[in-house]
Amino acid sequence: MTSIKDIALHCGVAISTVSRVLNNHPDVSQDTRDRVLQAAEALNYIPNTSARNLVRSSSDTIALLVKGVSNPFFSKLIKIIDREITLRGYTLELHQMDTSEDELRIGAQLANERKLIGILFLGGRFNYSPEEMALIHVPSVFCTYTNSFGTLDASAYSSVAIDDKQAACDAVDTLVSLGHRKIAILTANENDKSISELRFQGYKDALEKHGIAFDPNLVANTGTFSDMRAIYEATSRLIRRDSSFTAIFAIADLMAIVAIKALSDHGRSVPQDSSVVSIDGLDLSEYTLPTLTTLVQPTEEMGLACAKSIIDLIKHPGKHRQFTFETVLRPGGSVRKING
Amino acid sequence: MTSIKDIALHCGVAISTVSRVLNNHPDVSQDTRDRVLQAAEALNYIPNTSARNLVRSSSDTIALLVKGVSNPFFSKLIKIIDREITLRGYTLELHQMDTSEDELRIGAQLANERKLIGILFLGGRFNYSPEEMALIHVPSVFCTYTNSFGTLDASAYSSVAIDDKQAACDAVDTLVSLGHRKIAILTANENDKSISELRFQGYKDALEKHGIAFDPNLVANTGTFSDMRAIYEATSRLIRRDSSFTAIFAIADLMAIVAIKALSDHGRSVPQDSSVVSIDGLDLSEYTLPTLTTLVQPTEEMGLACAKSIIDLIKHPGKHRQFTFETVLRPGGSVRKING
Repeated sequence: MTSIKDIALHCGVAISTVSRVLNNHPDVSQDTRDRVLQAAEALNYIPNTSARNLVRSSSDTIALLVKGVSNPFFSKLIKIIDREITLRGYTLELHQMDTSEDELRIGAQLANERKLIGILFLGGRFNYSPEEMALIHVPSVFCTYTNSFGTLDASAYSSVAIDDKQAACDAVDTLVSLGHRKIAILTANENDKSISELRFQGYKDALEKHGIAFDPNLVANTGTFSDMRAIYEATSRLIRRDSSFTAIFAIADLMAIVAIKALSDHGRSVPQDSSVVSIDGLDLSEYTLPTLTTLVQPTEEMGLACAKSIIDLIKHPGKHRQFTFETVLRPGGSVRKING
Repeated sequence: MTSIKDIALHCGVAISTVSRVLNNHPDVSQDTRDRVLQAAEALNYIPNTSARNLVRSSSDTIALLVKGVSNPFFSKLIKIIDREITLRGYTLELHQMDTSEDELRIGAQLANERKLIGILFLGGRFNYSPEEMALIHVPSVFCTYTNSFGTLDASAYSSVAIDDKQAACDAVDTLVSLGHRKIAILTANENDKSISELRFQGYKDALEKHGIAFDPNLVANTGTFSDMRAIYEATSRLIRRDSSFTAIFAIADLMAIVAIKALSDHGRSVPQDSSVVSIDGLDLSEYTLPTLTTLVQPTEEMGLACAKSIIDLIKHPGKHRQFTFETVLRPGGSVRKING
């Protein structure tokens, strides 16, 4: 690796001169400055950035690390977070990752490599351990999720989320109140230690509350929140396996939209032949045919809370809080009352 | 502003020692290193980053500057560009901007502030001048647009886009071949010197080719590609103003989806009462009711071309090329043949 000594030898100047150039001191002639910078480039000189980051106390960059960027609920949330972070004088740097990657490992790497003052994690696992969290050396906030399946103490993490179990419960309640008792669920995964599992638990809890037996035949796993072909196929398999359901609870709006298409292709129209309820409240869901009956996440308030939380945490390290938001039912055209 | 001399005085060490610490040389004791770094932080020492960037020839960061991030066509394209850039060993840094902001001004600012080796502009204006382009000091590629309304020589810019005018023409041809002659257009803007204007021109050219008089009453301007309420209202105004049309050409899939909802709310079902054709080929458009008849942009190929173009340009500065892709009609359920 090239040192500043190599540059000094190459240019025939003192090491301290090279230092002065690299630190941009005024007391060096333009000619010498140019020669040193050219040599630094020619010799492929790489300053040690981690040492530099220590002294760059002026960084204003917060990373937003998004897991599963194809999830349409995230698009609006990202826009709001970006606006609110920027409004407050900070810079937001967006990083995408696949759902198969581990956000903590990527976050730790980012925090080491880049001059970040904070990280917003969007769409992560719900099961961090204190050992895993210790990998992240900058203030961080979990957006849209909590640590329900993990071992973190509430004093050790910050989060902004809805109550996923409650929202799922409300969705099922809505269907039951309309007379439905054969209620299928369209979920990404039954035990992913994340959002799907929590909403699946809420579904089961609600069935139990209403004295409805849980039927594994009415569970359709899509394996994804965003791959529409996979969602379509999971719904089609459900219909072929057991078409006795009168309603579907889809854990996300996009799943509901695709399910309605799959039902239609199998000769079942919504809401005449099947009712559909979901969670998200995407803007799009007000413009589909039929419009969705959905539990709306308060995206504006959540995005604002994400921005405020990370900035508060940067200013007051260690002062953790968990914010939980309520969803609100937006009646649409995808449900109907039946004779229960 | 704190200099390294101030730090040296504060710690009682030589200036060259401070330099060695800040440049992470091994020949300094841990104790001295710690004291210098603490002093640098305490004194709020800010290294001059632009000088540093010059010597950081090792940067691998390409910025993707997205204008109008709510445009759903961009979501998939961004994912592909990110994947292809990462596969090739570079880092992609995503920056969002409002449609009201100017991408060249923001791009110039980013190139100055951050250690970028290239910029991918996604969704910009079509009318740059050489003077404007001179603001950008790093290799850059225009994604999804060309310089149709500008004064740049083809040797002076790189781009990856579809032939917007031709795609619009193909959309109208499709409707005419089904017997339609009263064809309305749903566009964002008639003269934005950008994508809307080019597609609007294609629409007018196609009408002329088929001997159909252009009727300004059949033009609906939404002012936006992504605000669904505005698209809904523009469509509703069109229906109230002149409902004589038998078909709508919507210049983007999302506009078509919202238009179908507006038509439905005004008692016109698609395709029985109105046909609808659009441009994009979003995955979603295969799962709406009805599915869209749309001219599909080859998103995979375009994303790959964007990644390859910027990397080629970084390796061979000044070697500019414009790539133009063809759209392909994907038949859906939103059109029907009428007695023309």
